[in-house]
Amino acid sequence: MSQNSESEYTEGDLRNTGLSLKHDRTWDYELDRIVDAVDERGAKTVGLQFPEGLKRRAPRVADDLRTLLPDDVNVLISGQPCYGACDLDTYVMRRTDVFVHFGHSPMKESEKIIYVPLFSNVEVTPIMEEALAELTDPVDDPDVGLVTTAQHMNKFGEMREWLEARDYTVHTQRGDERLTHEGQVLGCNYASADVDADQILYVGGGKFHPLGLAMEHPDKNVVIADPVNNVVTIADTEKFMKQRYGAVHRAMDAEEWGVIFCTKIGQGRWEIAQEIVENNENAYLLTMDEVTPDRLTNFGLDAYVNTGCPRITTDDGPRFKKPMLTPGEYKIAVGEKPLDSLEFDTFHGTW
Amino acid sequence: MSQNSESEYTEGDLRNTGLSLKHDRTWDYELDRIVDAVDERGAKTVGLQFPEGLKRRAPRVADDLRTLLPDDVNVLISGQPCYGACDLDTYVMRRTDVFVHFGHSPMKESEKIIYVPLFSNVEVTPIMEEALAELTDPVDDPDVGLVTTAQHMNKFGEMREWLEARDYTVHTQRGDERLTHEGQVLGCNYASADVDADQILYVGGGKFHPLGLAMEHPDKNVVIADPVNNVVTIADTEKFMKQRYGAVHRAMDAEEWGVIFCTKIGQGRWEIAQEIVENNENAYLLTMDEVTPDRLTNFGLDAYVNTGCPRITTDDGPRFKKPMLTPGEYKIAVGEKPLDSLEFDTFHGTW
Repeated sequence: MSQNSESEYTEGDLRNTGLSLKHDRTWDYELDRIVDAVDERGAKTVGLQFPEGLKRRAPRVADDLRTLLPDDVNVLISGQPCYGACDLDTYVMRRTDVFVHFGHSPMKESEKIIYVPLFSNVEVTPIMEEALAELTDPVDDPDVGLVTTAQHMNKFGEMREWLEARDYTVHTQRGDERLTHEGQVLGCNYASADVDADQILYVGGGKFHPLGLAMEHPDKNVVIADPVNNVVTIADTEKFMKQRYGAVHRAMDAEEWGVIFCTKIGQGRWEIAQEIVENNENAYLLTMDEVTPDRLTNFGLDAYVNTGCPRITTDDGPRFKKPMLTPGEYKIAVGEKPLDSLEFDTFHGTW
Repeated sequence: MSQNSESEYTEGDLRNTGLSLKHDRTWDYELDRIVDAVDERGAKTVGLQFPEGLKRRAPRVADDLRTLLPDDVNVLISGQPCYGACDLDTYVMRRTDVFVHFGHSPMKESEKIIYVPLFSNVEVTPIMEEALAELTDPVDDPDVGLVTTAQHMNKFGEMREWLEARDYTVHTQRGDERLTHEGQVLGCNYASADVDADQILYVGGGKFHPLGLAMEHPDKNVVIADPVNNVVTIADTEKFMKQRYGAVHRAMDAEEWGVIFCTKIGQGRWEIAQEIVENNENAYLLTMDEVTPDRLTNFGLDAYVNTGCPRITTDDGPRFKKPMLTPGEYKIAVGEKPLDSLEFDTFHGTW
């Protein structure tokens, strides 16, 4: 059972990943907000959903909630994989009186869902100081785009002011309706970086988001200031772009195609999937939530088009035994578009 | 595209499994019944669901249906894993006008679902002839229970008559409401073998069903007459029972438990899961459809109780990094029941 106070845990996510964690993280699970919702609704069931990296905290959060909630309230934890605000456990959502989604900001507001974003407490200015060496001197080019992830949105104003104090002209925008906040990026959407600047400063943990950012904006210099792992790097898309071209070339020989429609609430692109199947008599529409190598292998088709999460295609592509393409790459493989039109697949809209 | 006539395919399922297939199988996909349903309902979408071993046939069945159906009817293929009539793809079912479930007999009749059982064409009497050597001579004990799977139900009358002609008294019964036919067994339900006989003749392919049968009925001699692989064997549960006792012993040290509630339509046992969680403050209710090692590992608990499909626990148990128990085994591990009460977990009822 929990050794911690109700809303603070210091154990880091990266300790088992080989990455070194340079600071202690604390998260605010906003248990008071959940307890209030249970009280207001007279709820008897509470469903909790955590992304993969935070699932290990779920039992502790459940412990604390049980302590705070009346005895007759049941707490359920979703065991489905979860990779974003696009990926709600609708089974649990529909069957619980209060449904809490941790770790992501809202993709679409709903009275059914309490989003607890889990803002990071990490300081961002020390790593931004180091990142200055990779940015063009403001005397030569003051324009810089600034983006971050949901976890660091609480420090976004501070980031902007810090850059402006160093004579940069900071360009930010909200992106499209899939994004909650100004300056926020998702793994599948970098519309907030469509700004009038040749360099983008990404402040945030990991390589997942800046890699997509650099693929989506190949003409911009993407500087990664990672305050979680305390490193500054430049996004390098070369390995991934080679993989994409390789997959497209291999798929050019395919006779039969599986066209994947993802059934996750925020990952479905029905029209795109339908259009491919309607125009190719050797294409078959396959529906699934998780897109895994095993699920595709069973069908024994020659190549696949994934209309669901673009990152499964680009990041997990090599794990699949047959070529898996984005919808845009499919058009290249079947000769509808030229090879030099290859670009990163992004996801817009909600549901 | 299909090289076959509309409803016959001769390729066998077992050719890539290392088992040798001794006969050509043909399946009747009952396409006329599907076409009639589309016509009657004015359907615009048809959803097809196949169990894992038959998914490879899905594109050919879709081809044939497209030929037979009006051009404006869309055919979708479920890419979700499917392991039984308990495991309907409710997402596709709810979103298509005609939903076809191949390879299993109905667990529960519904106007929403067309079940196509895919009866095998294999002859059963040659392997029954060989199985006689393993059955007690009818002069000494004429009583024999007879069971089979959905695939061979079309030959059940023939099996019975063949045994009766050799002076056996054949005991059969329907089992409970989870089962469609007299004499039918499921991987999770052997109620049809609760008959007054010390020996049971199982006629059917594979070892999956007779293994469960033997675990559920340890006092009976279970003779396996496998007409698909053309072998006669005696079910041996020793390896599996040792694994079960091993898992229970390892789980006795567990402090924190994950209690799995399976969200698949025919695999949920809510009351059993609830009872465990209500009586153990160190137990956490986890909901999921597929129960896999990765999904459990993320939670980092000491042991798990699976209230879903019993065969995941018994057959896949060794793949999990932490002990996974059936609900009955859980009671032994926490001291509520004696060790010698360990028995096979069966599943009753529908949904």
